[in-house]
Amino acid sequence: MTASGMGKQRAYLDHNASAPLEEAAREAMIDALSVTGNASSVHGSGRKLKAIVSEARRAVAAMVGTDPQHVVFTSGATEAANMLLTPDWRMGRSPLRFSTLYVCAADHPCTLSGGRFTPDRVQRFGVDVTGLVDLDALADALGRHDRTDGLPLVAVHAANNQTGVIQPIGEISRIVEDAGGFLIVDAVQAAGRIPIAIADGWGDFLILSSHKIGGPQGAGAIVGVSDLAMPVPLLLGGGQEKGHRAGTENVAAIAGFGAAARLAADRLSVAPGIAGLRDRFERAVVSAFPDAEIHGLAAPRLCNTSFFSLPTMKAETAQIAFDLAGIAVSAGSACSSGKVGPSHVLVAMGRGDQATGLRVSIGRETGEAELSAFTEALAKMAAQRSAGRVAA
Amino acid sequence: MTASGMGKQRAYLDHNASAPLEEAAREAMIDALSVTGNASSVHGSGRKLKAIVSEARRAVAAMVGTDPQHVVFTSGATEAANMLLTPDWRMGRSPLRFSTLYVCAADHPCTLSGGRFTPDRVQRFGVDVTGLVDLDALADALGRHDRTDGLPLVAVHAANNQTGVIQPIGEISRIVEDAGGFLIVDAVQAAGRIPIAIADGWGDFLILSSHKIGGPQGAGAIVGVSDLAMPVPLLLGGGQEKGHRAGTENVAAIAGFGAAARLAADRLSVAPGIAGLRDRFERAVVSAFPDAEIHGLAAPRLCNTSFFSLPTMKAETAQIAFDLAGIAVSAGSACSSGKVGPSHVLVAMGRGDQATGLRVSIGRETGEAELSAFTEALAKMAAQRSAGRVAA
Repeated sequence: MTASGMGKQRAYLDHNASAPLEEAAREAMIDALSVTGNASSVHGSGRKLKAIVSEARRAVAAMVGTDPQHVVFTSGATEAANMLLTPDWRMGRSPLRFSTLYVCAADHPCTLSGGRFTPDRVQRFGVDVTGLVDLDALADALGRHDRTDGLPLVAVHAANNQTGVIQPIGEISRIVEDAGGFLIVDAVQAAGRIPIAIADGWGDFLILSSHKIGGPQGAGAIVGVSDLAMPVPLLLGGGQEKGHRAGTENVAAIAGFGAAARLAADRLSVAPGIAGLRDRFERAVVSAFPDAEIHGLAAPRLCNTSFFSLPTMKAETAQIAFDLAGIAVSAGSACSSGKVGPSHVLVAMGRGDQATGLRVSIGRETGEAELSAFTEALAKMAAQRSAGRVAA
Repeated sequence: MTASGMGKQRAYLDHNASAPLEEAAREAMIDALSVTGNASSVHGSGRKLKAIVSEARRAVAAMVGTDPQHVVFTSGATEAANMLLTPDWRMGRSPLRFSTLYVCAADHPCTLSGGRFTPDRVQRFGVDVTGLVDLDALADALGRHDRTDGLPLVAVHAANNQTGVIQPIGEISRIVEDAGGFLIVDAVQAAGRIPIAIADGWGDFLILSSHKIGGPQGAGAIVGVSDLAMPVPLLLGGGQEKGHRAGTENVAAIAGFGAAARLAADRLSVAPGIAGLRDRFERAVVSAFPDAEIHGLAAPRLCNTSFFSLPTMKAETAQIAFDLAGIAVSAGSACSSGKVGPSHVLVAMGRGDQATGLRVSIGRETGEAELSAFTEALAKMAAQRSAGRVAA
């Protein structure tokens, strides 16, 4: 399938799927690509590349308030999740065993899949109708945890990729700590949108993705509050990343990730303005479709994300209509090979097994032109619905 | 550590660690980076990115003579190896089980580590003094394979990363087929240097790396002769790559990989000229150090690789001397976080537990200037050795 026949792209409203590449990240990549060599080589060009990786490591560590030595670069957040979600860890030379993984039912599929835990060792905990983690249910589940075979490992998203709902990570962190478990926080959508200080109640490890903060695809990281306990490596066969992740370093992508991480503070500073613009997108939705339902409104949300349902129109149908108008929005997440099905996040929020939604996710590049294009397309869809032409 | 204080890079002779990025690959990356979006999104920008990935998939498939649908992109060869080296496969919906992994003792660490096999399920087979696989030993080992718990899985490199020795893949493939096993061929160093036609006795799956053929770091692939049997995925949590490899596609790196794959035929056509230049590098070595030993000379070798020992000088010492002269050569492979130790390849060839070697690996960018710089540095080292200054 090619892009031919599609109209001009007028509005990219899918930042949560992949954010536009920051110019500084692009430049950092191009600079890194100009250096030939392998970052693990001991000669001059290897050292030059290693220095680029080290600089990026410092930037990523600084973004979340930890030490560079607690950052392990991966090929992305999915690899990071698969690396962390394992029963087998090491504390120095001693084995450390987790017997059950507790994951939030509204998590991204990369943690929901359970990584290296067998399916019988994965338990889900729920969210309430607003999308917030049910803290009592989590505490209850952990209270029933049988420590005979190992400790509890808990994974949760800091901010939901579909709804933008921000979880009470501090409270979740305390519950997990009280239960003697480890907490893995998927901070992919939170990074650069809300402040993160890993030492301040953000769990034991964060999962980060470069391309969700304006860096390139192909880089991510696990970032620890310390490196005392580490998961048994997922990728074996090389001493890179202090032996935690084998494979030639993708220096260009890492350099771009570092450049984007250095801009995270800038991104945070414009969050209030983005939230204001997001609210105008939502008013446009409700104005065109008074029966629209915006999800997660009762909870704290990311500045840039809106997830809504148009009860009389299938999300897929609406997405196609937007696409024909040159507007990129998402129906569900972009991680399932193009399939548009029910939203597992809405299902977890109790909206029924077939609940679908449309996501608008914006960024600092989004402005009046995008809002106008969106509003215009909505008006057209509303008119067509009135005429009975695209009703579900 | 930074590159400051080091002399100008005069000769990059470490193509087997990472080849210079081809201009066409660089351009393909920059083009891909200009498209904002996620290749798994169903809207216009997603489709555009998906088309870039599909084009690269066709190029990589064509390079090794298979169908694009048999290519699964990964973050690199190490991930590809860890994905393939697993006891648990599927044939359609049926499980397919391999009980023992047989790996060549001279393999790259990414296969030698055994992937997802437990160490007690990994057996090594040897090479002879020339570096060629001991076919009788392999046949014997497979003949003794107990099929009670599963089939034998065999992994071998097509061309050695250190010595450049080219293995008799056709014969190995027949032995593995006769034993009812599967053969995984690490074609990382062979691609673009010798012709590969997977259907013609090249085993069941190939491991490929982008950055060894002039593409960028951050992309690799598993390529199958078919997709009837596939390994249980290593990365879970998304439907990308038909469910075989979850994680947002690194479109820019994949695009660069595809561009490099399209140049593979060009690379093959200049192989004889590169071999001639490599021979001149070897004559320079023997001329400066008449006691030098060049490894693998009795076997077929890649056009671009020379691995030698200077018996009276430690490889590490020599490497540092070259580095100070602005010449990048390798002592061992670049995959072990800068450590220079004995070469496991030379150990496998029976050269003793402490055997070390220096690797010169060149490419079509290498010319007279590099040869002169190398010859000059060798002469200086030989003079210093005569004066007793850098003798081991």
